[in-house]
Amino acid sequence: MAFILGVDIGGTDIKLGIVDEAASKPAARELVSGTIPTRAGEGPERAAARVRAWCDGQGASRVEAAGIACAGLIDGRRGLLHVSPNLGGWVDAPLRDLFERALGVPAVVENDANAAAYGEWRAGAGRGLSSFVCLTLGTGVGGGIVLGGSLYRGATGFAGEIGHAVICADGPPCACGNRGCLEALIGARAIVRRARELYGASGGARAEPAAGRSPEELARAAARGDEVAARVFAETGRYLGIALANIVHILAPEAIAVGGGVAGAGEILFGPARETLRRSVMDDRMAEVRVVPAELGNRAAVLGSALLAHAEAAGAR
Amino acid sequence: MAFILGVDIGGTDIKLGIVDEAASKPAARELVSGTIPTRAGEGPERAAARVRAWCDGQGASRVEAAGIACAGLIDGRRGLLHVSPNLGGWVDAPLRDLFERALGVPAVVENDANAAAYGEWRAGAGRGLSSFVCLTLGTGVGGGIVLGGSLYRGATGFAGEIGHAVICADGPPCACGNRGCLEALIGARAIVRRARELYGASGGARAEPAAGRSPEELARAAARGDEVAARVFAETGRYLGIALANIVHILAPEAIAVGGGVAGAGEILFGPARETLRRSVMDDRMAEVRVVPAELGNRAAVLGSALLAHAEAAGAR
Repeated sequence: MAFILGVDIGGTDIKLGIVDEAASKPAARELVSGTIPTRAGEGPERAAARVRAWCDGQGASRVEAAGIACAGLIDGRRGLLHVSPNLGGWVDAPLRDLFERALGVPAVVENDANAAAYGEWRAGAGRGLSSFVCLTLGTGVGGGIVLGGSLYRGATGFAGEIGHAVICADGPPCACGNRGCLEALIGARAIVRRARELYGASGGARAEPAAGRSPEELARAAARGDEVAARVFAETGRYLGIALANIVHILAPEAIAVGGGVAGAGEILFGPARETLRRSVMDDRMAEVRVVPAELGNRAAVLGSALLAHAEAAGAR
Repeated sequence: MAFILGVDIGGTDIKLGIVDEAASKPAARELVSGTIPTRAGEGPERAAARVRAWCDGQGASRVEAAGIACAGLIDGRRGLLHVSPNLGGWVDAPLRDLFERALGVPAVVENDANAAAYGEWRAGAGRGLSSFVCLTLGTGVGGGIVLGGSLYRGATGFAGEIGHAVICADGPPCACGNRGCLEALIGARAIVRRARELYGASGGARAEPAAGRSPEELARAAARGDEVAARVFAETGRYLGIALANIVHILAPEAIAVGGGVAGAGEILFGPARETLRRSVMDDRMAEVRVVPAELGNRAAVLGSALLAHAEAAGAR
């Protein structure tokens, strides 16, 4: 039995997991899970050393490979993080080399949303499908595509950036510098901004400022019957539905999973999204695609990066 | 040497070609080309009989397979045309069976833009690439995707409908019933409508109504220095560039070819499209994708459907 390390490097924390190779069976997931601080300012080499120290602390001497995931543009062939929205100074950082040196095992580097999609395909909502797309909705909106049994990376390695496909030409500005990207319409910042505008417009007495702090609080407010919160998710779901229809028109996958913190809102988001999908597709048969919640929660990229490292190490042997 | 028949069924005409199996070499294309009327109202069985009569007239007794292309949603596995914008009564028409019976050889049925993309990949602008997208700009805006050496069809067979991906939520109405699709912004009807609006707005003396009749006349007017025509293509190019950037963000192909009558406008369309692509992508390295004119003109679907039939007949043997 082989153990693989999965590492998901966020702006604040690094999530770690030791996974067994049979993890695609639903019962077998992470054997050991942990979190350590990222301290991005100290640079990637120090982060790799702290990951090694965590591994040593687990007595994980039998780890055979490592998968490293983070937000940003990844050049997987060269094992480079080109640039990341969360890891300021890490530009063209040779993460594969740094982690291979620190850990003494082969490493694979992948975009976090791609890793999450691969994890969901191997062990979550996409099991057994030959074409599968996974969206991860949070501050950033990420996507990953699995086709014919492998993660689809495209010519540059940068494929799957569905969050930065434009669905609203000349729409609101996005963190990427463009306008009208999916992320600019349904990312956490856009949701909070829309809620604040609507609470402001609805007047002092009905204002419920706490609900406007995050998509999670807003979802709780909607569950309590708050009309403004419900309206924000209905609008968010409508834009999500347009993006789902675009995915169906272009890729026609068997299923699309939607995960990430924003997706935790559940049916108040998925309902309007599915309804918009149904009304937007050219033909009713296109609407038969399954749109499902992701299953692995915020560990999808940890599990996915480990499974990816195992698959690619196996391919290289 | 095997000969294959390619058939591209349009609303008015059926284009036909007899292709040799070595057609992927640039020198060897269609050996015999022809056009017969579609007469869609007579139904697909009569059309198949007329295609057979044309073949007999060519003495094409050695045809070994046939590829049938037409606009619309094609269920390739069952060989059905589900529905077509150009062929009114042909609903769930079993084109594969009808043509196999009429011609006495195995047939493959495919969407015309998919067939054109496959043709460009085998014998045109996409030769030798492992990821390639082809857009066909005319009254309809079609797309086709070739990945890893095969036409990508998705779970339903309806993949590649890039013309009906929305780039402008709540934008102008599209023939498909939705709003803001790429086709609603850069299809021939949208181009002519925008030109008429601008000529009208620019006043009687400068109005040049002949130029507003079709994208082709408009392109000639732009070449003569007509400012309104130039502005229409600049706007059209900008929307095309947004679509190109979306394709790059999602699929990151090695190249995107753009063909069809509207693409004949050349640099007045491609220039603004490439500039918008460059400004829209998340990272400069994404703009390195090659955006090129398609090479096979209006015979792409004839050639592509024949080559597809040859490849799939070979696969089935």
